Amino acid sequence: MGQTLTEKILDDHLVEGELETGEEIGIEIDQVLTQDTTGTMVWLQFEAMGLDEVQTELAAQYCDHQTYQFDFKNTDDHRFLRSAAGTYGAHFSRPGNGICHNVHRENFAAPGKTLLGSDSHTPTPGGLGELAIGAGGIDITVAMGGAPYYIEMPEVVNVRLEGELPEWATAKDVILEMLRRLTVKGGVGKILEYTGPGAESLSAPERMTITNMGTELGATSSIFATDEQTQDYLERVGRGEEYVELQPDDDAEYDDEIVVDLSDLEPLIAEPSMPDKVVPVSEVAGTDVDQVIVGSCTNGAFEDVLPAAKMLEGREVNKTTEMIVAPGSKQASELLARQGWVAEMMAAGVNFSEATCGACIGIGHVPASDSVSLRTFNRNFEGRSGIEDDNVYLCSPEVAAAAALKGEIVDPRDLAEELGDLEDPGFELADEYDASKADLISPDEAVDDELIKGPNIGDVPLKDPLEAELEGPALLKMEDNITTDHIIPATQDILMYRSNVPKLSEFTLSRVDDTFAQRALESDGGFLVAGENYGQGSSREHAALCPMYLGVDGVLAQSFARIHRANLFNFGLLPLTIDEETYDAIDQGDDIEIVDDVEEAVSSGAEEFTVRVNGEEEFTATLDASERERDILAAGGKLAWTKAQAEGGSGAAPADD
Amino acid sequence: MGQTLTEKILDDHLVEGELETGEEIGIEIDQVLTQDTTGTMVWLQFEAMGLDEVQTELAAQYCDHQTYQFDFKNTDDHRFLRSAAGTYGAHFSRPGNGICHNVHRENFAAPGKTLLGSDSHTPTPGGLGELAIGAGGIDITVAMGGAPYYIEMPEVVNVRLEGELPEWATAKDVILEMLRRLTVKGGVGKILEYTGPGAESLSAPERMTITNMGTELGATSSIFATDEQTQDYLERVGRGEEYVELQPDDDAEYDDEIVVDLSDLEPLIAEPSMPDKVVPVSEVAGTDVDQVIVGSCTNGAFEDVLPAAKMLEGREVNKTTEMIVAPGSKQASELLARQGWVAEMMAAGVNFSEATCGACIGIGHVPASDSVSLRTFNRNFEGRSGIEDDNVYLCSPEVAAAAALKGEIVDPRDLAEELGDLEDPGFELADEYDASKADLISPDEAVDDELIKGPNIGDVPLKDPLEAELEGPALLKMEDNITTDHIIPATQDILMYRSNVPKLSEFTLSRVDDTFAQRALESDGGFLVAGENYGQGSSREHAALCPMYLGVDGVLAQSFARIHRANLFNFGLLPLTIDEETYDAIDQGDDIEIVDDVEEAVSSGAEEFTVRVNGEEEFTATLDASERERDILAAGGKLAWTKAQAEGGSGAAPADD
Repeated sequence: MGQTLTEKILDDHLVEGELETGEEIGIEIDQVLTQDTTGTMVWLQFEAMGLDEVQTELAAQYCDHQTYQFDFKNTDDHRFLRSAAGTYGAHFSRPGNGICHNVHRENFAAPGKTLLGSDSHTPTPGGLGELAIGAGGIDITVAMGGAPYYIEMPEVVNVRLEGELPEWATAKDVILEMLRRLTVKGGVGKILEYTGPGAESLSAPERMTITNMGTELGATSSIFATDEQTQDYLERVGRGEEYVELQPDDDAEYDDEIVVDLSDLEPLIAEPSMPDKVVPVSEVAGTDVDQVIVGSCTNGAFEDVLPAAKMLEGREVNKTTEMIVAPGSKQASELLARQGWVAEMMAAGVNFSEATCGACIGIGHVPASDSVSLRTFNRNFEGRSGIEDDNVYLCSPEVAAAAALKGEIVDPRDLAEELGDLEDPGFELADEYDASKADLISPDEAVDDELIKGPNIGDVPLKDPLEAELEGPALLKMEDNITTDHIIPATQDILMYRSNVPKLSEFTLSRVDDTFAQRALESDGGFLVAGENYGQGSSREHAALCPMYLGVDGVLAQSFARIHRANLFNFGLLPLTIDEETYDAIDQGDDIEIVDDVEEAVSSGAEEFTVRVNGEEEFTATLDASERERDILAAGGKLAWTKAQAEGGSGAAPADD
Repeated sequence: MGQTLTEKILDDHLVEGELETGEEIGIEIDQVLTQDTTGTMVWLQFEAMGLDEVQTELAAQYCDHQTYQFDFKNTDDHRFLRSAAGTYGAHFSRPGNGICHNVHRENFAAPGKTLLGSDSHTPTPGGLGELAIGAGGIDITVAMGGAPYYIEMPEVVNVRLEGELPEWATAKDVILEMLRRLTVKGGVGKILEYTGPGAESLSAPERMTITNMGTELGATSSIFATDEQTQDYLERVGRGEEYVELQPDDDAEYDDEIVVDLSDLEPLIAEPSMPDKVVPVSEVAGTDVDQVIVGSCTNGAFEDVLPAAKMLEGREVNKTTEMIVAPGSKQASELLARQGWVAEMMAAGVNFSEATCGACIGIGHVPASDSVSLRTFNRNFEGRSGIEDDNVYLCSPEVAAAAALKGEIVDPRDLAEELGDLEDPGFELADEYDASKADLISPDEAVDDELIKGPNIGDVPLKDPLEAELEGPALLKMEDNITTDHIIPATQDILMYRSNVPKLSEFTLSRVDDTFAQRALESDGGFLVAGENYGQGSSREHAALCPMYLGVDGVLAQSFARIHRANLFNFGLLPLTIDEETYDAIDQGDDIEIVDDVEEAVSSGAEEFTVRVNGEEEFTATLDASERERDILAAGGKLAWTKAQAEGGSGAAPADD
């Protein structure tokens, strides 16, 4: 039986398991990327692992979210990240050098490789035939430590593209059409493999607009086969030698197939406030537009900004509208500047910004109240722009530029007819992507060999391996349905301490009991006791990390939310399921003792544990865990486990802990 | 007796008083400028005056401080300012078009004119022979209403410049030398008139670096005579016809004279954290530099950035250092982009920013903790960069670029020797300042004819004219030394409501009694009672405006701080001085009645007023006020007074109040 492209790459990187849909597989990771809002914790965890050097072929640390550096904590984070990259052997991209996905695809992405990144749009280089997956911080840390990445084998869906894009339709309209059809949940648990003559007709950058925004479908990843278009792009970025031909077999079997005829597409737009609320632009034409922004990892490349610049040349942005262009990388900015386009855009009335994620995540250029903003970004979730009740539309650079000229939403085809002299600018690559790499510091050029931590950057503690005896007080007894927002609130005043676990931990469970953090810290270990569905909500790993920092040994709950339970293993906290009788029998402050040899029981696969309350009554609690989860727990968490793996399975605590 | 240049311009604009040092004079204002952090209140006050149109020759509203638009309140402010400019006949400069002083000098500043601006660096166009003065918001409002600007006639000091600048010394070093000699208090109450052959040797932009930063000397203004250099600049910006020759008479008498020999100057630098802590660069050479920023209204023009760009061409910013260039205007950015310099700077590793005040006021690019930042700005007050305990140095673009290349502070002469191929880039004007004016919306092109107010933008109330009877409760009794920080706290959570007097007023005197605002609002008028030195501290006009909004009629205090007392007149609150016996006799909640016909007494010049407490005891209070202050008080404050003046002295309440 033939293989899909996805299967071929996975096969090539398979360390554990079999490529059967839904089965857990372990794959080797070639490249990792981190950005500035997730990177600090990744490197603090890497430090806590006690390893000397990144183990993947390549690691790259980008500074793109907080490039405006509003607070010294941002600038401190950037300095720390530079020092971490230098110390441990990663590439470092300075703030202002661009968005991780753009800089990565320009410099490092390569066909056939695997990439794991702590950002949801990591799948971008799928357009170059790299299998790229977004993941949580600790997964990146662990991958950098040399361990495999574990994932349930996704379904592989064949998205067959027929025909060619007509005038004024773009790659953005392809992914908007996908969102219109599949909705934001349509890709969950799937890898979308784009094939067919329509796929071949798209240049690599156009493909990357599609793979980037595949994230909005909920897809695990999106990928294109490699061909002349891939080779052409790699040659233009100066890395032609990295080209590898990768195609699915002719008789590959897919879990599903979707057909999109590109020739049927027209300019589309996602209405507020969901990327799948897609309609033809003409349907919302005439809507007044207050702000237009061209940029982001979806449409911020040189090739994406160029059509907008061509449309603006010799014209002026409507006086009722503010237009901001924030290129996705400084390479894009430099090429645009060198060819005169930056001057033309400025002359047309564009506010030309440094290269940044910026406005896409509500950092800067927040829309005015009760106003309309058209953006070439990938997300328009309500409030994401920085203001509640926003009206953010998502569209191609062409549609954005047309709206900026007209001061209202307009189908560019209609504007072309109205103006007479406006033509489809087309999609054109730079002959050579030869901009300077002055802001990309390779491990060889590193200027730091030790970590530089500002006052807001704390240490990440590493838990000791599980011991035989486990006893401590019931530090807090909680009700049913405690969420991760209860455990670690996500409000801005608390989020700014994401690089500072000791500080962040002060807020642990404060919404339940604001004396908890202090009491836990002063206690020599102890347990959390909860009812049903403990830890529901986000995937936030701090909800396990902070209790761990405070010394909590385990959680006794009637049931656990799936992701939080995984996080408890990852941070070495014993998650025991108790019944209602046991829950009722335990009061806050009671002494809890796990009667078994805990280390031995966990490691040997025991499912039942005896819990003794106040030295008297005994109850049975259960541990439902895979072998790998038991190993992680026994090692003291995923970090310690990874380190042990790297050292040959000694399981010893790291030297510097 | 001959006249100084200052006297000539003042004479030409004199409406009231005589040009004798220390005497109050009233002068006609030709031009006003406002920016986005002070402009909103200016326009709200203008609206409250009920006038239809700006009365000055020219008014210009710039958006430069909050261009990053971190919060929707910033973007709402910008939209409001555009609508106000359109409605009332001012020029509007869009966010991203540049810093008020830079855009103003490029487009509007003209020899012999008077300019009043609600920004402390308003004196910038003194380098073109315009007499430009910074003032508070209400002064701008009133000037826009057509009233004269009143000021004590300053001393006029002759700053005689001899010789010519040697290599690597710049205009920035001239003003740094002035600061070194005079300190930050040396210019208080003075207008500095630059003369002599050295002055003639400087181009107009160089002169404007000096007049801009004259503010750091505390000077009321700084000015140069006009000559070929002035004419040359005006021709290059396309306004040659606005040239007027203006020179002091040969026998002009100055209050003082200072001589600076330019040929003695060398590259200078202001150490942290005061602009007058000036030393030769060589004295601090070798200090590691983490951040370098070129820009601001002092050194952000095309001609200022160009030397740095030339120094960076073909070289790279040190990998330990982040360099940001934020031009002072989009015109500067566009010219730099058109000539290829933006691409060269990016290639060297510069993070090229939108045109903004930004980092100069701690908005963006805040330095890392325990780091060194070199900036071409005008101020390095501790904490102004956005982080306490900062280490900000002030220097020329040449010294900044040298530090960026070396990664440490270095005298550019030494760096030139070290590198061998680095030459003094010199100071060069653009042949033509012909960039687009797409972001400058003239009154003729206005897109709004009514005000657009976001939810954070309130109305400014206008007080009724003083009435005959004044009676109400003692709303609050306070101790001695109540500061303006007590009256309206300046913390950030409260400052963001500066466009919203009703909201801001909720915080009035909250630090003394947090029930006050609500009680005052519910009361039908009333009085504040205080001990000695009421209203000490800042010049914040909200400390009078907010009590006025709450309905307070007057303040009975044992003594008043000078500026706050003036603000009470400006906002129509009767400031009566009481003795200790009276103070002791009044309890909070007592009924206070001014027995006299208050309107008549104030207008007729009465100094003694009878205060009846609880309908029984009577005390004498005094009003110490000039005729103009009495007129303002009687009219209901400066806004109403100005409106009455404009309407021919009717004194009637405005139609829309």
